Amino acid sequence: MNVTIVGAGSIGLLIAAFSSKVGHKVTLITNRESQAQILNEKGLIFKTNQGTVEKYRIEAVAVKEIETIRTDCVIFAVKSYHLKQVLDRLSGSIQAKAVLFVQNGMSHIECLSLFNHEEIGLAVVEHGAMRLEDNLVSHTGVGRINWSIFQGSKEDSVLPNFFSKSEDVNFPFYHKKDWQKMLQTKLLVNVAINPLTALLQVKNGALLTNDSYYKLMSEIVRETVQVLGMNGKQGLEKVIEVCQATKENESSMLRDRAKGQKTELEAIVGYVIRKANEQSQSVPSLFFLYEAIKGIEQQSFRGAGQ
Amino acid sequence: MNVTIVGAGSIGLLIAAFSSKVGHKVTLITNRESQAQILNEKGLIFKTNQGTVEKYRIEAVAVKEIETIRTDCVIFAVKSYHLKQVLDRLSGSIQAKAVLFVQNGMSHIECLSLFNHEEIGLAVVEHGAMRLEDNLVSHTGVGRINWSIFQGSKEDSVLPNFFSKSEDVNFPFYHKKDWQKMLQTKLLVNVAINPLTALLQVKNGALLTNDSYYKLMSEIVRETVQVLGMNGKQGLEKVIEVCQATKENESSMLRDRAKGQKTELEAIVGYVIRKANEQSQSVPSLFFLYEAIKGIEQQSFRGAGQ
Repeated sequence: MNVTIVGAGSIGLLIAAFSSKVGHKVTLITNRESQAQILNEKGLIFKTNQGTVEKYRIEAVAVKEIETIRTDCVIFAVKSYHLKQVLDRLSGSIQAKAVLFVQNGMSHIECLSLFNHEEIGLAVVEHGAMRLEDNLVSHTGVGRINWSIFQGSKEDSVLPNFFSKSEDVNFPFYHKKDWQKMLQTKLLVNVAINPLTALLQVKNGALLTNDSYYKLMSEIVRETVQVLGMNGKQGLEKVIEVCQATKENESSMLRDRAKGQKTELEAIVGYVIRKANEQSQSVPSLFFLYEAIKGIEQQSFRGAGQ
Repeated sequence: MNVTIVGAGSIGLLIAAFSSKVGHKVTLITNRESQAQILNEKGLIFKTNQGTVEKYRIEAVAVKEIETIRTDCVIFAVKSYHLKQVLDRLSGSIQAKAVLFVQNGMSHIECLSLFNHEEIGLAVVEHGAMRLEDNLVSHTGVGRINWSIFQGSKEDSVLPNFFSKSEDVNFPFYHKKDWQKMLQTKLLVNVAINPLTALLQVKNGALLTNDSYYKLMSEIVRETVQVLGMNGKQGLEKVIEVCQATKENESSMLRDRAKGQKTELEAIVGYVIRKANEQSQSVPSLFFLYEAIKGIEQQSFRGAGQ
């Protein structure tokens, strides 16, 4: 199967590596020409969770070189806040049977009406991955990928084939019937863990071991499940489970803060606040988190410019 | 006049220096014997705001050496969270005509019933001061001291005399008729600036220049004035005025955080939250700040123990 992956950050490179491993023909669309060049020259280096190193030949193309993409499946693996811009740039050029989104948060859902592809899938990546160099990705935590059909897929169609081909135990796929519930659960976990750990500058596990941080996290979960109409007890249990499993990890938002980079605040906390406003619900903890992280981003960009 | 100052931190040393300067005979009670020794041997060095250096002979005594204090005026200049412990230790030993408290926050008010002294005064210190060595204090910001009578003072009594003797322009004193209003205003400023700057790790001025931080500060002011029954517009104006005047300063709570020390959270935010609970008022931003700083303290003590 021809698989085109748009975005060569940690998740894009990770998906490129395992797609190559199971035998798909991978084309990777990069933002920078220099990254495409090094990937074409030196291949994609994949450092597995066991510490072994694998190498894959893939085709890499910089986004500005793209005229038309013809592929079986295109996977968008760019940050949520870049997605709209990438879609504006590429939407006329993509001729794919299936489209798959792997974004955090919810803001990509609002873009789906732009697509009239036969098959649209949504996925949630629970792996840990870190891009160490432009052509080197490290699989820092073995998780799983949950996926679900948003629109039009049958048993013999592209997405089920793409996923069923992978039987490598380090990349387990789980099909979920209800994409909304799947994304909501991921969203809740992201809302509860990411901004708080970024604000407090702690690893995920501190939200369980520090009484005060646990109270704050519980309050954030309480507000979020109410807005999303989820079960509060199950929601809190899921968040605790993920905190425990990733206790030694730094959340993506904490890493973004440390690097002075933009975070996925809008797609994560911003989405829930917008929903709360629509429902006239008060979410003061989410408001606090939202403005605090937004302010930190503003501070950091100002600092960077000096 | 004999002035006894309990506590030899930045504020205690500052008050010792200006009391000496205007001719009072100063006894300083220190926590550590080593600090008393160096003060007695080398004198108190005072670095003025203009950068000149002055030296004062004072008598210093470690708290454990105290049997009885006989003095005209005793000034308590210890952190709010140490006051109760110091009072338990010293209350039977103090024979003073007047007692003056200079604590941040409100928790010392709850201790005043322990005193049956003729005169009890309350003061609010708006100077910047930093203890650079055990016997060296720097006057980092010229402000003023507001003071008020809590109990029993006449024109010829101790506290008015103490304050009227000082005519040095770098230590202006302002008498306030209403001690509650005076303390509330100081409390509001502390609640609005200290925990937020400590959490976000920014100087006071950032609360005005960063839109998101300004929103958070305004929300904190809104909750606090409601609990304290203050005028919201005047309250916000006062906080903005102090932020502007101290824009290059780090708040005491931020400095405490940086040093991994306990903060005055209970006397400042804790007091307002307790009042809010008594009134069944919801103060979610104060709750967030309170638990965040409490968690940071817990984290920092744990870190220090490792």
